[in-house]
Amino acid sequence: MRALIFRHYFNQALDHFTFKQGSAKWLQRYFIYDGYRNGASKSPKPIFFYAGNEDAVDVYVNFTGLMWELGKEMDALLVFAEHRYYGESQPVGPGSLHKDPSYLSIEQALADFATLIYHVKETYDALDSPVIAFGGSYGGMLAAWLRAKYPNAVQGAIAGSAPVGAYVSRHNPDFNPSDFWEVVTYDARPEAGAAEHCRKNVHSFFQAMLANKGRQSFWQQLSDVFQLCQAPESGQDVENVAYWVQGAFDSFAMGNYPYPSTYMGGALPAWPMRAACEHLAQMEPSQEDILQGMAEAVGLLYNATRDQPCYNATQLVGPAGPGDTWLFQWCTERAGQELPFYPANGRTDMFWDQGKYDEEQIRADCMKQFNVSGSGDWPVISLGGFDFSTASNIVFSNGEYDPWRIGGITRDISDTVVAVLIEEGAHHLDLMFSHPHDPPSVINARLLEAAYIKKWVQEHSARKPLQKPFGIS
Amino acid sequence: MRALIFRHYFNQALDHFTFKQGSAKWLQRYFIYDGYRNGASKSPKPIFFYAGNEDAVDVYVNFTGLMWELGKEMDALLVFAEHRYYGESQPVGPGSLHKDPSYLSIEQALADFATLIYHVKETYDALDSPVIAFGGSYGGMLAAWLRAKYPNAVQGAIAGSAPVGAYVSRHNPDFNPSDFWEVVTYDARPEAGAAEHCRKNVHSFFQAMLANKGRQSFWQQLSDVFQLCQAPESGQDVENVAYWVQGAFDSFAMGNYPYPSTYMGGALPAWPMRAACEHLAQMEPSQEDILQGMAEAVGLLYNATRDQPCYNATQLVGPAGPGDTWLFQWCTERAGQELPFYPANGRTDMFWDQGKYDEEQIRADCMKQFNVSGSGDWPVISLGGFDFSTASNIVFSNGEYDPWRIGGITRDISDTVVAVLIEEGAHHLDLMFSHPHDPPSVINARLLEAAYIKKWVQEHSARKPLQKPFGIS
Repeated sequence: MRALIFRHYFNQALDHFTFKQGSAKWLQRYFIYDGYRNGASKSPKPIFFYAGNEDAVDVYVNFTGLMWELGKEMDALLVFAEHRYYGESQPVGPGSLHKDPSYLSIEQALADFATLIYHVKETYDALDSPVIAFGGSYGGMLAAWLRAKYPNAVQGAIAGSAPVGAYVSRHNPDFNPSDFWEVVTYDARPEAGAAEHCRKNVHSFFQAMLANKGRQSFWQQLSDVFQLCQAPESGQDVENVAYWVQGAFDSFAMGNYPYPSTYMGGALPAWPMRAACEHLAQMEPSQEDILQGMAEAVGLLYNATRDQPCYNATQLVGPAGPGDTWLFQWCTERAGQELPFYPANGRTDMFWDQGKYDEEQIRADCMKQFNVSGSGDWPVISLGGFDFSTASNIVFSNGEYDPWRIGGITRDISDTVVAVLIEEGAHHLDLMFSHPHDPPSVINARLLEAAYIKKWVQEHSARKPLQKPFGIS
Repeated sequence: MRALIFRHYFNQALDHFTFKQGSAKWLQRYFIYDGYRNGASKSPKPIFFYAGNEDAVDVYVNFTGLMWELGKEMDALLVFAEHRYYGESQPVGPGSLHKDPSYLSIEQALADFATLIYHVKETYDALDSPVIAFGGSYGGMLAAWLRAKYPNAVQGAIAGSAPVGAYVSRHNPDFNPSDFWEVVTYDARPEAGAAEHCRKNVHSFFQAMLANKGRQSFWQQLSDVFQLCQAPESGQDVENVAYWVQGAFDSFAMGNYPYPSTYMGGALPAWPMRAACEHLAQMEPSQEDILQGMAEAVGLLYNATRDQPCYNATQLVGPAGPGDTWLFQWCTERAGQELPFYPANGRTDMFWDQGKYDEEQIRADCMKQFNVSGSGDWPVISLGGFDFSTASNIVFSNGEYDPWRIGGITRDISDTVVAVLIEEGAHHLDLMFSHPHDPPSVINARLLEAAYIKKWVQEHSARKPLQKPFGIS
């Protein structure tokens, strides 16, 4: 079915909020699938709009099964929009980030989407079609904000695993970034299907790393066991390896799906946290056993294809996602980031004490790398953080196993802004294609999302006219 | 009491939505009055925030009586913020418009206000204080949008005579700019207290102008009767005089207050439309009578102080307000404008047929003057036009006599977005200081606004915490 999808480019404004002379335009990429729209349904046919996030939009076309499945059922027009500065959507030409990253901001991206939606509605003779925004992770944040900020453009939003409140800011006091690692640890409990001694052994691993990080003999041992391309040459190198290992557990938690998936980058097995913990299951392992077990565990992510000759793990761990662009968004508006900026504490989690969230260090690093500095304050002022009390028509879904739920809306806020917690769910499992191994919780979450969407669609078609044409009497 | 008002400057971002290296700041002016905040009231003490519009903010400090009177009653902290590029708030130095007008946009101004509100709350140890936005005209639009777009920053808005829907756009089909002149004409009816034959005579005046505009003898007559500094030398000059006369009726309608007021620029008498019509009251006047009557009528506005030696009326009529800055906002985001862009038709109004609203001509003129072009489309996408169906806690007030009500919200949209039509009211009469000549309608409107504000304040103090701190169990 996806063979018929159409790729389009829309002539988009470079800067929606200032008025430069000449006012440059650029081509934003989006995909449209209209194969369902000719369906026989008599109900109003909606537009499903994916709010693209920090990757080429193809990824979201291929993975957002919910839009395809529900779109078919509801005769929807499917639209997948690419976020500026990702994929082919390069506002100032190829490699835009390095030419001029200025125009990369959440607010500009939202304005792109709102403008594109109006364009699609006109192009497809769909002015009266209700628009439902979808998105996962940062895309889910964008979908929710699109509904909150441009309610004229979208009638509702499905925000999968959207950490809208993940901002360290004096204006958003309820967010604690260290909780992230507590959820990762939560996933390694026996109650979550993991081996009984896993958490203890993971913790021991990091304790051993810290205790031995200054010892040259350990550097060689670590290099041999983990097949590092280059042996550590300092305590800092060992620490970098520790962060690299921690990063694998991050992926095991976010990607803790009930079936094998490539979504997190590597080709992870089903229930990857459980699979990893199988290698760390011994009751009283030696330090050698733990190192060996951990090497096998992280290999699930880093060497899934079994063709990795060695690992470059002594370098400072970079950001997840496609590199610099996402890091720029972290530096300016603190878009989602966990490693190494969200510190574990080694007490409520199985990692080690990484100190406090260090705003000053973050700013200094960002100034060094991009010559810009931001903070969590402006995004909270601009976008509200956890505060969706005045919004409407949003389903926020969060997975029990997904550490990003610490920044998500996990309680119903009103009759129309609702939260669904997906038991045994990882990072926006509900957005994926249906699978025989889906737990009942995600099947129910999708049914609930479908019910809300149908309600929003009906309400839209039953809406009153906005304003009577003017009459002086 | 206003002697104690404090002038402040806030270090504001130049561009909230892009991330330039170096990230310039500038000083935004605002006024604060904290004399009421020490009052004995036990209720939560709110912050009243004036969303400054297209003039130096002093004007709004001096004229927004509702904030002073209600602020005293409610022990409010009063804040009056100046809009960027007006008054002393010059983002790129004195005369910013001519240096670089790029950063003048509605969205930037709203972001300024939201940021400033957080700053004031911190500075005045008022983090829990509910904030109520006030504004009249474009300021009322800003107040309403501030509530709609930054509901975390303001808990409610009083939007006086705010033509939020005054956008000619395919996305906003219910707005017809010509209706503006129909309301002006409505104010000249006997039912509105004007002389019986006024409308007919006004219409005759413009008919005579059109019929004679090519005649040299008429040019001299017109110049003599109106005391023009320079006699017309072309039909175009006569037409310019006609627009200039029409502009006076615009002011008589917007400024049709029940007492003398300087708010519209000149020192208008009470009920200026009635006063103007007194000069155009004859049943069967000669053409000379009509010219003479009209000259006296427009003198109410243009020569209120009786010291004008002659009028420069043959030049093309410029925009109302402080000139270029406001015109730039018209050119980019179609901020409020009536003359000469909103065409009268001479059928449903007492003026003459001025053709269609000419988007192409507007763009061409704007390109010529500022080398930028905008349209009504983007502001409607960005701000929603008439669509406030998802907003909450806004009172939209509109005056029966105010032509800007054609772009206002004049019907209740929900329980919390309500409309009040002020009978015999002109342009945001409700925001002015109380006056013995106030009609009952405006007294009631202010009571209703006060009741809503008190409700919003109470609801804010009774609000639930946003999100429970994270707990994994």
